[in-house]
Amino acid sequence: MTIPSYQDMLAARERIAPYIHRTPVLTSQHIDGLAGASLFFKCENMQKAGAFKARGASNAVFGLSDEQAARGVATHSSGNHGTCLAYAAGRRGIPCTVVMPRTAPQAKKDAVRGYGAEVVECEPSTTSREAVFAEVVARTGAEFVHPYNDPRVIAGQGTCALELNDQIDGLDAVIAPIGGGGMVSGTCLTLSTLAPHIRIYAAEPEQADDAYRSFKAGHIIADDAPETIADGLKVPLKDLTWHFVSRNVTDILTVSETEIVDAMKLIWKRLKIVMEPSSAVPLAAILKNKELFAGQRVGVVITGGNVDLDKLPWNQPNAQ
Amino acid sequence: MTIPSYQDMLAARERIAPYIHRTPVLTSQHIDGLAGASLFFKCENMQKAGAFKARGASNAVFGLSDEQAARGVATHSSGNHGTCLAYAAGRRGIPCTVVMPRTAPQAKKDAVRGYGAEVVECEPSTTSREAVFAEVVARTGAEFVHPYNDPRVIAGQGTCALELNDQIDGLDAVIAPIGGGGMVSGTCLTLSTLAPHIRIYAAEPEQADDAYRSFKAGHIIADDAPETIADGLKVPLKDLTWHFVSRNVTDILTVSETEIVDAMKLIWKRLKIVMEPSSAVPLAAILKNKELFAGQRVGVVITGGNVDLDKLPWNQPNAQ
Repeated sequence: MTIPSYQDMLAARERIAPYIHRTPVLTSQHIDGLAGASLFFKCENMQKAGAFKARGASNAVFGLSDEQAARGVATHSSGNHGTCLAYAAGRRGIPCTVVMPRTAPQAKKDAVRGYGAEVVECEPSTTSREAVFAEVVARTGAEFVHPYNDPRVIAGQGTCALELNDQIDGLDAVIAPIGGGGMVSGTCLTLSTLAPHIRIYAAEPEQADDAYRSFKAGHIIADDAPETIADGLKVPLKDLTWHFVSRNVTDILTVSETEIVDAMKLIWKRLKIVMEPSSAVPLAAILKNKELFAGQRVGVVITGGNVDLDKLPWNQPNAQ
Repeated sequence: MTIPSYQDMLAARERIAPYIHRTPVLTSQHIDGLAGASLFFKCENMQKAGAFKARGASNAVFGLSDEQAARGVATHSSGNHGTCLAYAAGRRGIPCTVVMPRTAPQAKKDAVRGYGAEVVECEPSTTSREAVFAEVVARTGAEFVHPYNDPRVIAGQGTCALELNDQIDGLDAVIAPIGGGGMVSGTCLTLSTLAPHIRIYAAEPEQADDAYRSFKAGHIIADDAPETIADGLKVPLKDLTWHFVSRNVTDILTVSETEIVDAMKLIWKRLKIVMEPSSAVPLAAILKNKELFAGQRVGVVITGGNVDLDKLPWNQPNAQ
């Protein structure tokens, strides 16, 4: 296990700068009023390929030697990491294969193919995903870029907190959704050196609360195939992300499916941005735990925007 | 008729600075590829109260004497001007009455009331709107702030082009939707002095093409109650906006309802922003007239984001 360093994160920032956006930070007086805090929404939904994962994927792809790169890259991903690895590989002009659950949103499959990568489908479980992926790597010889348990990826994700801290003075806390823990780990990597006084919270769906239970138990607990509308957050922690989560996270907060949908609609209405259910989990957690953030300045990572516009949760019969 | 000056626009910028956002400018390589041009989307959907009209409304409200202000303000508006006048009046703490068509989106009526203003409903025609409004003014003695045919409002809207020109170097053209012509007139006011080489286009729905027909005829032609999904663009030009449109606009381009919905969905998917059908009209016009913009740097004004999330056009049975 190679723990990425603060220097790795700074190197990532230089390496990926040509391929990513410095995303805007938005605010809403109305939402601040509801929360009783000053919230600064870091809009990684507006990142290249629609998610923060363009940072880690670009760092991995552009850090490869020419020899490695020629064999291409491959990954398994419930969505955005696959899209973002496809994006980065496309920018470098190398092959990319993405193993995705057959149940992943059509918009995400289309996006991966749109960047010129190959999609190979698996069943919607961690077990199936890993088995299908092993076949792909054996066939192609591609470099595996794990969605989160990879020091290159975590170092890349850490550039988001660096930007946010540069854009907003005096943050008291940062909160991000947690699935596998890549964004949270990158945030820990950066802020534990740059601004260790800033508290780091992770937010998770109650229906996929393996990170919460891991955090409370003191060791990794993994679910196979949890179900939540926040489809980017179904994957479990792994050793590298557990390293950061167990050492640097103040707490993990969980929210219900209804709370996620309500927070998502609130953000769409007030911030005028298109973002995924996963990205609404932090605001839902803030509104549920106001006492933790009262009067404070809180960075909220909006992690991705690749939602299927034809299947919005508030237009579904079983949304709530 | 008092024509606002460039100095009025500069004064507006100072006056309204505490009450408005400097909105971000977003880009999409994908959309640029489709258009064959470099498009810079000025996101006034993220403006206070969700529309550029917060600029003009704030300039009018904060320019009133204390004596005028005490009697309040009133307007008629198919939507965003009403919301924005309510917002500005709320910030100053003065009464505000808004006459709105009973067919206006519920989200817009709620927004006006949410800022503490009174909504008075009329029929969805210019004739009815003006009659009901006259009663309101007679009753309250409020200062009338016209949605667009008002020098204070046009000077305020002109601050948007000032910002855009400051944010993006080397623009060749700017395109904005046209209804009554307030945004287009403000753009003309600013750019005709600041950067007269920048061409100014207006974009209009075919089904509410009175500005287009006026422009071609050389005099104002007004429709009563045109029907289009771009509900912010149903109102006719008036003398002040005609002054600017007739002198400074290069051309007016029209698009179909289907083209508007397609462009709207493209912007939602790629820019990850929530915006109104009216705001999609300029991109639809660019994609329909690529030869006019080929290889150029084009500012595109996204005028508002106050859409009803429960009634998105691509989820409606009669969208296209």
